[in-house]
Order: sequence, then C-alpha cells, then structure tokens
Amino acid sequence: MSSTLPQPATEDIEIVPVLQALADPVRLELIRALRSNPSPRSCAITEYDVEISAPTLSHHWKVLREAGLTTTFVEGRTRWVELRIEDIHKRFPGLLDAVLA
Amino acid sequence: MSSTLPQPATEDIEIVPVLQALADPVRLELIRALRSNPSPRSCAITEYDVEISAPTLSHHWKVLREAGLTTTFVEGRTRWVELRIEDIHKRFPGLLDAVLA
Repeated sequence: MSSTLPQPATEDIEIVPVLQALADPVRLELIRALRSNPSPRSCAITEYDVEISAPTLSHHWKVLREAGLTTTFVEGRTRWVELRIEDIHKRFPGLLDAVLA
Repeated sequence: MSSTLPQPATEDIEIVPVLQALADPVRLELIRALRSNPSPRSCAITEYDVEISAPTLSHHWKVLREAGLTTTFVEGRTRWVELRIEDIHKRFPGLLDAVLA
C-alpha cells in the first residue's frame, strides 16, 4: 500500500509555478535524472549526485510536487518520486524538451 | 543614433536565468506582448496593460534583458525593447512556444 502526497490536478498545473520550480539548477538536474528513467525513484539523497543537504533535497521535492511536475508517494519508510511527464506534456507540450535540451 | 544596453551574447544565454526571468506573470505578459509584434516597442508604462508602477516595469525590463530574452536600446529620451526571438530559438528551440502556448 502506498499513499500519494497532495499535488495539483493536471488541469490545475499552471505555467508560472512550473517555471519557478524549473528555475533552479538543482531542481533542473533532478528533473533530468527523473526523465532519464520512467520508473519511480527513491527520494533519498544517496540516489542523486547533488551537493546539498537532505532537508534541502526534501524542499526541492516539495517545490516540484506542488508545481505539478512530480508525484511523490510513500511506501512504508520510503518516499518515491516520478515525473508527471504526460500531465506536463498535456498542459505545456514541448516544455520539458525545450528546457532540458 | 541609438545605444544598446548590455546584454549577454547569444551563446551566453543560460536556461536558469531565462526560466527565472519567465517565471513571473507580469514578465510573461510583457514577453507575450513583444512576441505579438516583431518591431521594437517603447518601454514606457503607458504602452502596456499592466497594473504596476513605472519603476517596477523598469525592473522587469532589466531582468528580461539581463537574462538574454530582450534587447533594450536608447534613442534620445526613448527606450525601446524587442524580443530576441531568434537568439532564444537558437539556444532553446521551442521554449517560447511551449511557455506562451
């Protein structure tokens, strides 16, 4: 059993929060890492090549989730994150390609 | 005679400052207004349908220019602004289309 943390519905994903969420070098790297592999990944800091603290990483996951870019779900003691690639494409076709090119 | 204010060269336009510049509702509207007409437009606040002060508008023009999204040039007492649409397309193809869709 898993529970999904709150996130905006697809139709409520708005461009300004999405751009604000993407406008950070660490978050861009996280999005890039998630995009390279479509299956959910652990949110744990040991999984990512970033020079930040665990609480800072948690904050970045929250910003991405609240903007509608990612889904976070909890299974036992593990948090998983995945890119909402289809939802983003529905709302802003071509955005991720343009940003991550 | 006109003089162009400092701006990054095309190859120095970077995605994070561009996203930071775009991640604001007023600046998005300014970009949209500039994109609707390829000729230079006055920077004057009377030209734009925005509910902000003149100094705030000046600040927004500066952010857009420094990110590499716009060119500002001065002719006498008038400042003109235009979108660097080809430069942006060269660096991040599809970005403006995706953001302004």
